[in-house]
Amino acid sequence: MGGNSFGTLFKITTWGESHGEALGVVIDGCPSRIELSDEDIQKELDQRRPGQGKGSSPRKERDRVEILSGIFEGKTTGTPISLLIRNEDVDSSPYEEWKDVFRPGQADFTYEAKYGIRDHRGGGRASARETAGRVAAGAVAKKILEKERIEIIGCTIELGGIQTEKVNIEEIERNVLRCPDRNAAVSMEKKIEEARLRGDSLGGIVEVLVRNCPPGLGDPVFDKLEADLAKALMSIGAVRGVEVGAGFRVARMLGSQCNDPIGPKGFEKNDAGGILGGISNGTDIVLRVAVKPIPSISLEQKTVDRAMRPVSIKIKGRHDVSAIPRINFVCEAMVAIVLADHLLRQKALAGC
Amino acid sequence: MGGNSFGTLFKITTWGESHGEALGVVIDGCPSRIELSDEDIQKELDQRRPGQGKGSSPRKERDRVEILSGIFEGKTTGTPISLLIRNEDVDSSPYEEWKDVFRPGQADFTYEAKYGIRDHRGGGRASARETAGRVAAGAVAKKILEKERIEIIGCTIELGGIQTEKVNIEEIERNVLRCPDRNAAVSMEKKIEEARLRGDSLGGIVEVLVRNCPPGLGDPVFDKLEADLAKALMSIGAVRGVEVGAGFRVARMLGSQCNDPIGPKGFEKNDAGGILGGISNGTDIVLRVAVKPIPSISLEQKTVDRAMRPVSIKIKGRHDVSAIPRINFVCEAMVAIVLADHLLRQKALAGC
Amino acid sequence: MGGNSFGTLFKITTWGESHGEALGVVIDGCPSRIELSDEDIQKELDQRRPGQGKGSSPRKERDRVEILSGIFEGKTTGTPISLLIRNEDVDSSPYEEWKDVFRPGQADFTYEAKYGIRDHRGGGRASARETAGRVAAGAVAKKILEKERIEIIGCTIELGGIQTEKVNIEEIERNVLRCPDRNAAVSMEKKIEEARLRGDSLGGIVEVLVRNCPPGLGDPVFDKLEADLAKALMSIGAVRGVEVGAGFRVARMLGSQCNDPIGPKGFEKNDAGGILGGISNGTDIVLRVAVKPIPSISLEQKTVDRAMRPVSIKIKGRHDVSAIPRINFVCEAMVAIVLADHLLRQKALAGC
Amino acid sequence: MGGNSFGTLFKITTWGESHGEALGVVIDGCPSRIELSDEDIQKELDQRRPGQGKGSSPRKERDRVEILSGIFEGKTTGTPISLLIRNEDVDSSPYEEWKDVFRPGQADFTYEAKYGIRDHRGGGRASARETAGRVAAGAVAKKILEKERIEIIGCTIELGGIQTEKVNIEEIERNVLRCPDRNAAVSMEKKIEEARLRGDSLGGIVEVLVRNCPPGLGDPVFDKLEADLAKALMSIGAVRGVEVGAGFRVARMLGSQCNDPIGPKGFEKNDAGGILGGISNGTDIVLRVAVKPIPSISLEQKTVDRAMRPVSIKIKGRHDVSAIPRINFVCEAMVAIVLADHLLRQKALAGC
Repeated sequence: MGGNSFGTLFKITTWGESHGEALGVVIDGCPSRIELSDEDIQKELDQRRPGQGKGSSPRKERDRVEILSGIFEGKTTGTPISLLIRNEDVDSSPYEEWKDVFRPGQADFTYEAKYGIRDHRGGGRASARETAGRVAAGAVAKKILEKERIEIIGCTIELGGIQTEKVNIEEIERNVLRCPDRNAAVSMEKKIEEARLRGDSLGGIVEVLVRNCPPGLGDPVFDKLEADLAKALMSIGAVRGVEVGAGFRVARMLGSQCNDPIGPKGFEKNDAGGILGGISNGTDIVLRVAVKPIPSISLEQKTVDRAMRPVSIKIKGRHDVSAIPRINFVCEAMVAIVLADHLLRQKALAGC
Repeated sequence: MGGNSFGTLFKITTWGESHGEALGVVIDGCPSRIELSDEDIQKELDQRRPGQGKGSSPRKERDRVEILSGIFEGKTTGTPISLLIRNEDVDSSPYEEWKDVFRPGQADFTYEAKYGIRDHRGGGRASARETAGRVAAGAVAKKILEKERIEIIGCTIELGGIQTEKVNIEEIERNVLRCPDRNAAVSMEKKIEEARLRGDSLGGIVEVLVRNCPPGLGDPVFDKLEADLAKALMSIGAVRGVEVGAGFRVARMLGSQCNDPIGPKGFEKNDAGGILGGISNGTDIVLRVAVKPIPSISLEQKTVDRAMRPVSIKIKGRHDVSAIPRINFVCEAMVAIVLADHLLRQKALAGC
Repeated sequence: MGGNSFGTLFKITTWGESHGEALGVVIDGCPSRIELSDEDIQKELDQRRPGQGKGSSPRKERDRVEILSGIFEGKTTGTPISLLIRNEDVDSSPYEEWKDVFRPGQADFTYEAKYGIRDHRGGGRASARETAGRVAAGAVAKKILEKERIEIIGCTIELGGIQTEKVNIEEIERNVLRCPDRNAAVSMEKKIEEARLRGDSLGGIVEVLVRNCPPGLGDPVFDKLEADLAKALMSIGAVRGVEVGAGFRVARMLGSQCNDPIGPKGFEKNDAGGILGGISNGTDIVLRVAVKPIPSISLEQKTVDRAMRPVSIKIKGRHDVSAIPRINFVCEAMVAIVLADHLLRQKALAGC
Repeated sequence: MGGNSFGTLFKITTWGESHGEALGVVIDGCPSRIELSDEDIQKELDQRRPGQGKGSSPRKERDRVEILSGIFEGKTTGTPISLLIRNEDVDSSPYEEWKDVFRPGQADFTYEAKYGIRDHRGGGRASARETAGRVAAGAVAKKILEKERIEIIGCTIELGGIQTEKVNIEEIERNVLRCPDRNAAVSMEKKIEEARLRGDSLGGIVEVLVRNCPPGLGDPVFDKLEADLAKALMSIGAVRGVEVGAGFRVARMLGSQCNDPIGPKGFEKNDAGGILGGISNGTDIVLRVAVKPIPSISLEQKTVDRAMRPVSIKIKGRHDVSAIPRINFVCEAMVAIVLADHLLRQKALAGC
């Protein structure tokens, strides 16, 4: 109930603080006899690693995953899969100055309010490092989805005010920002460079596509597929909005525009984003999330200390300018986890 | 696991089909000794009733709630509260023609795909009538929140392309659309009338404000307050997007704009929407949801029957033009349920 | 979290007080397209009805079940099945004298301690009447199990100190006590008559057999099949002990006696009671529960009132002498619910 | 849903195989600001260590716990506590011969049936080593209970047919079998020695007492305190029966004997075992579990291999003669976990 578990049949529990000994995830409910190697997980973690794009942190951070249980002779056994990532070469000294100060846009104030104690080193549990556990678990979920040929692709469709004008899926892997529009990618890089020089940070929008999703996934009413996806995505620290299909555009649509006509070959457009009545309809699932700018900026900010006395702060060090593109992989992971869960739920019913 | 329950400590289970015998909700985990009368619930249900605004259905629908358990001498006993609403004067004959046809924008196709059987009468379980159970449960949740002076207000900030220009909370109760801007309300009414005449329907945006929310509610990581709220709101049939605070606007903000400075008296602006790191920060919680146009329109639509043969349909009868303003009450109810749940969760920890 | 739900994939929520308006159960997660009629449920409820055996209450109690949702054209739709039983002809006046007195062996004292309020009429939520909801849900679970030919049989193997000497399954339906030994049944009836004349009550032991259970049901570690069964059975008010297979006899066995040898045709004896390592092994599941005497007796008892002042009480009226044989049906229902749940859980995994 | 989590508010997830890399537990929902050191956990693990009594395994097994998260400056932070125990000096070669053979009384056959794959080394996930995670989590639960002065004591009241005649709590810590009767302890030791020489094993009965438990813990109906305790205890591998208070003795009691009279100072006897209607009544909670003999014996046994061909086996090596006394600590841990959970649940309600 501490809120660190997600899922029902395919269930993950993450743990660990940014500057603690280690962090990790336990996956319970993974079907047996699925081939799974360290490499399957490591390659997802490596993608998520910062310092790869100009938009991301130049810090050196090496996340080496260790599979501690649940695998025998290269296959899952049906028992919990425990994944461990040690926190190495951690230097908590730069965080000493935030021990008694609440950084704006961070969880410092609220953790203090809730728990009366706070591991301030590196943001503790509220650090984006927590998402390493999600990405590792997502790699396992993807192995389950692969068997059904379900594919998940995250990409960057807006960053620092630059929007993509066209979508070319092949382009995504070709640029470090995972932007499906080459020209937009170039402009985004420029925006990032400008923000970095100013000591500021940028927000953006990530889109997640699910291809080959079979119809029938999702439980109506509260566990609608889009509801579980919304929770999964909104649980990522930097996300402030989630939409499915036409999303907020529906507010200005007429019913006659919004409804997707159905033809003998299926749905003829996809404003529903692949989900109707909480259940997948067999077309691509389309999701978008709004990503806020990284709150750690080197510009001067106004805040208070624990005694609510005003202080003015600058957060030194080299920080990511944007959670994008790294957050793409976290979004993919969370979507994979929701789909693996609902796939198992549907198999339970379909077996009867 | 059928997806009809929501919450952990304050937990609701709704049941019932639109044209079945009845529908209802069971609330488990309500603290004891809270005063609760039929009237507390009935008044919330009456607000939700259609046929009150020009935007809503002219059908006569009378939802009389019956408390079947959990109350003794006017107070909750700590045992489950079962609420029942009979479906009266139901005429399923107009739905006969949809028995073998999948209406666009509805759950017809996906229920069939998932279950292989479908109660087509009045939309069955996928009908908006299901939300009566949510509103009834929300009335109970509000009683718990009232003791802490927490207040929830839903209002219409966009409808049919008309946006509010100013927000006057007092105005909300004065117009039937629950629009906080009197001029906008008039324009919205006009849009509704136009759409009704064309046989079309309209989407919009609802905003939910939570006032006097104490800091400390919400569990970090997966059960972040905004994550649970996003699931709660996205589980409402017509909702296609959810945002908190600045929402999708964060995509174009700089970190220096997005971070809310903190002063000796608290947060100096509220782009965070009252939640930081998944935990309430003591300022107002601000949420917005995108509401799609009602899919039942009398204009001609293209679809298929069960054998995937093309058919052209018109949905006769008088339908709501928009789920707004009714959906305001459903949003309020879901927000109340999430907050009541997290309030209890926080009390469990605070007691130690 | 109020503790009124049970199960994960096949999940039930019961509600209702003994002398309230009604009681019932909501079943969520029942697979679709299972034939289910009022009669399927009513016949289980009728068996459970008191006043049928000499050991049971002569009160007239008619439990008419009403299916309110989840069924369409005689089949389950996959949506929640809500079952309602009205409390008719209830006379709460005999309970007026217990309003401020804690009856020994009852939940009066503890409900007061927990909730600070108590519906004293007919025992409120703590009444054995609550089990009607369980039996109704069990009837639905049995329909799922029937498709796999899984059969559940409860019988009385001890009552008032009389133990069965032989077990004849055919005999069970032939006597009102559901005793598999005709001679023992006669002696038990005599014991019941004696206890009734004295105004006292009797305990006993119920055995539950599960036949044709496939191997593979149950999740190791915490959700072992016997662990979930133990919880299910121990949650029945009068049950004070649960054992599987050889049960408490294992305390005096050697490993060489207790281990069941395996031959080419399977297990050669069944001291394990059909479960090894938390998972069914394909042989019969054998469970036994200890049932305490009904606490309502007409002999004088010593207790206190709300102010902890000593009072001496006699509980008038005609009461059951034993929860047996009625509790047989409740045990069967709970075992059916656990098995239906684990059957669905296993199907989820097996589908991958 | 894989069954490796337990609890609702205080929730644990164990993972790990006997001969895998490591095993551990993640505790989610522990309140913040509780003092917790490695030593608090290590001392519980050391007690559980085999090779301490004559009844237990002479194998050298050193379980060194590592706290990986959730603690800051010696106190819990409210975030998940991850505990790791490496499996050191593991020699899996003796298990090679069981790779394709189902040992009687073990989970070999059923894991194969359920998962189609099995980590045969050291019993894999089904090994008693899994309980190290439970004991470690129990140590944390006990810290929460300590603050309320709740105390849990496990002791051995029967072993190899020898029953205690008197109960002297002080005696428990004085003998390695944790037997509260010194003379019985001597006879039990003799029985163990005899069984060891024969290559056989012994069963017994463990009693768990909870002292200073406040009234009001437990949720009626399905989450009755005794139901959650029964599940917790029955989930321990060797346990085949659980009883509360008078337990199976109630079968032969009259109501007038079984009911506990209440006087001005409380309950005047305790056949209820401290729980009425599923809720603690303020007196000591008394539980007993039946422990089966260790299935690994060096006597010849009849079984089959994977192809269901008969084989005759002898399990070499030095094994525990009885799971007692080690299982005492596992029982204590599980009881502590259930009570910590219900304590938090009760605090949630009491706060309103």
